[in-house]
Amino acid sequence: MQKLGADARLAAGTLAHASAKAKNAALLAAAAALRADKAAILEANAKDVAETKQAGDATAAFLDRLTLDEARIEAMASGLETVAGLPDPVGEIMAEWSRPNGLRIRRVRVPLGVIGVIFEARPNVTADAGGLCLKAGNPVILRPGSECFHSAHAVLERLRHGLKLADLPETVVQIVPTRDRAAVGEMLKMTDSIDIIVPRGGKSLIERVIQESQIPVLRHLDGICHVYADRAADLEKAQKIALNAKMRRPGICGAMETLLVDAAIAERFLPAALRALAEAGCEIRGDEKTRSLYPDAKAATEADWSTEYLDAILSVRVVDGLNDAIAHINRYGSHHTDSIVTEDEAAAKIFLDHVDSAIVVQNASTQFADGGEFGMGAEIGISTGRLHARGPVGVEQLTTYKYLVLGDGQVRP
Amino acid sequence: MQKLGADARLAAGTLAHASAKAKNAALLAAAAALRADKAAILEANAKDVAETKQAGDATAAFLDRLTLDEARIEAMASGLETVAGLPDPVGEIMAEWSRPNGLRIRRVRVPLGVIGVIFEARPNVTADAGGLCLKAGNPVILRPGSECFHSAHAVLERLRHGLKLADLPETVVQIVPTRDRAAVGEMLKMTDSIDIIVPRGGKSLIERVIQESQIPVLRHLDGICHVYADRAADLEKAQKIALNAKMRRPGICGAMETLLVDAAIAERFLPAALRALAEAGCEIRGDEKTRSLYPDAKAATEADWSTEYLDAILSVRVVDGLNDAIAHINRYGSHHTDSIVTEDEAAAKIFLDHVDSAIVVQNASTQFADGGEFGMGAEIGISTGRLHARGPVGVEQLTTYKYLVLGDGQVRP
Repeated sequence: MQKLGADARLAAGTLAHASAKAKNAALLAAAAALRADKAAILEANAKDVAETKQAGDATAAFLDRLTLDEARIEAMASGLETVAGLPDPVGEIMAEWSRPNGLRIRRVRVPLGVIGVIFEARPNVTADAGGLCLKAGNPVILRPGSECFHSAHAVLERLRHGLKLADLPETVVQIVPTRDRAAVGEMLKMTDSIDIIVPRGGKSLIERVIQESQIPVLRHLDGICHVYADRAADLEKAQKIALNAKMRRPGICGAMETLLVDAAIAERFLPAALRALAEAGCEIRGDEKTRSLYPDAKAATEADWSTEYLDAILSVRVVDGLNDAIAHINRYGSHHTDSIVTEDEAAAKIFLDHVDSAIVVQNASTQFADGGEFGMGAEIGISTGRLHARGPVGVEQLTTYKYLVLGDGQVRP
Repeated sequence: MQKLGADARLAAGTLAHASAKAKNAALLAAAAALRADKAAILEANAKDVAETKQAGDATAAFLDRLTLDEARIEAMASGLETVAGLPDPVGEIMAEWSRPNGLRIRRVRVPLGVIGVIFEARPNVTADAGGLCLKAGNPVILRPGSECFHSAHAVLERLRHGLKLADLPETVVQIVPTRDRAAVGEMLKMTDSIDIIVPRGGKSLIERVIQESQIPVLRHLDGICHVYADRAADLEKAQKIALNAKMRRPGICGAMETLLVDAAIAERFLPAALRALAEAGCEIRGDEKTRSLYPDAKAATEADWSTEYLDAILSVRVVDGLNDAIAHINRYGSHHTDSIVTEDEAAAKIFLDHVDSAIVVQNASTQFADGGEFGMGAEIGISTGRLHARGPVGVEQLTTYKYLVLGDGQVRP
């Protein structure tokens, strides 16, 4: 582990000054290698899947995330190409000004440093995280879930092939060489060689990382996202948005978990909206008022308001107007993404100002919470923390800055 | 402690939406109260000083930092006035763009949250940190060194007077109500109510905080700053800069600790430059080459290169040109502030690019490493970490952002 850290630190010095051209060449060559070596990657993945099935207790959803196919390999390859096409953030002059004493001060974007990514058994994260970190100039140490050990290494080999062709250090992307869980603990203490830890996975993994890490963590906790249908909502928009926010993909972090409805429109809005959701396969859990308007709803308990279902389940509450909705969201939500549906601009402004979330939306689906949808090209996750990066973490958020101070002999009085 | 945290969290909701006018009124009223109540503050401070002297083992420097006088109270008051005069960062639109689907995305600056400041026995930090946090919209929980308990409370009272007059919650600034050291440990675990910890003080305090904290830390470790006199240096500038960087105030974090000299100019530069430093009262510790040119120097040991003296002591090394200087700085420095003196723009560019420090300077003193000198008005410290803020941490660095996504009914395909 210490060797990995030292190698990454060494690679950081080279990669920080690599040209955009070299970095993009590495990304494109890696994409080509992923495509060319599909068969070998699928074979390594088949080994992972077989071992995991043999071990016994993996769920169908777990096996689905673990399993690669041609489409998923193609998605990794085209993801690397997308990242290659993004502007290089390194070297950008973010601000520049002069002082009365003649000093010129320039704030310049530079790579963040060595990044540690800890993730679960999703082999595609190897390429996604590796590509983003490389583009931003950061060597990365990956710690994949042990079940995808073989596939992650198969993907790694193609990334390294790209690095080699572009004459960049192969140690820019490394994988922790052991499946031993203790390696995670060790990694979280490597304050000298890792600058930031990015955990990607379920709540328990992320909570463990936050608890144990001595290295700063870019955290992405749960996404308990809300849609609030205001009294001034266009009901057709509200219904369409609620349906999309929940059912487009119920398992992503930007999916709505709770629908809040202004009491003033509950009678007109709820029955049809909930029927449409139910018809799409969604289970409805409502508060008392909701159940009086839509008797098919199960009773929601207090725990429902702070539950991330990641599934076709929705909790529904009738609230007493805008302020009540904001209070509910700030209390039970996870500061991820929340949406108001309203045609009342004054109400929208209050909601946008007072909901304390990374992303606050007016008249659109919460499922737009995504780096790609924001125009960032790709993301390593969505930060629900407040420090450094909030919301989608793309290439730009994987950088920091330094100050250049340019003088001609100034000394401080 | 839990009550403090809950009160701060509650105050955050109000303060985040307070007008610039109200915040500035609070700052100005607090400044006026500090001036008006000088006598009471000095009395509280005298009590602290007497108790500390009685306890016995405080050094002269420690007592100096603890002791307030009229000038220091005036400095606190005018510091608050400076902060009141700064632009309000909250609400600033940092970026705005549209997506092909018509969504409009806006990145808006918002307060960082509740800030915990842990500091040593310097009562003025109460006003400095309190004022900066208030301006940026962040409630603050202060944990002063136990020796300045009375004076910190005396200053707190005047800040609260200002808040009250401006109709803002007095709980915007709070002090941990106990001198018990265990309170620090408890504070570092309050992940629900404190968003970021800012330690201000010596290395041991900061290392303890980094070790123990479950809350993200804006860290300011030591300042092992270098001046490198290049072969293309204007020797007069180099001498003037070295003298200022070391001796203007040897005890600040931006003071030079090591002078590196290009072998190509060592003979012409070192004897006169070191004589000038010695005449100003500086102890010189040199490597072998330095001592051959300036025999009065003591012998530097390996430990000297990574020592922050914070005193009138300087280590001096002759290096084999630019790359050697850069390698020395990246290896032994603390990524704080480093300066090159050269008239060779190509050499300067390489130095500015490759020295991995928060602040890299050409032809000026390292003592400019200061938020005020950068034009930020004031600072809570200088971050040597890479995450969130690097370099001086002023009002702007005490904020984060949120995204507003404005649609007219968009759903994600």
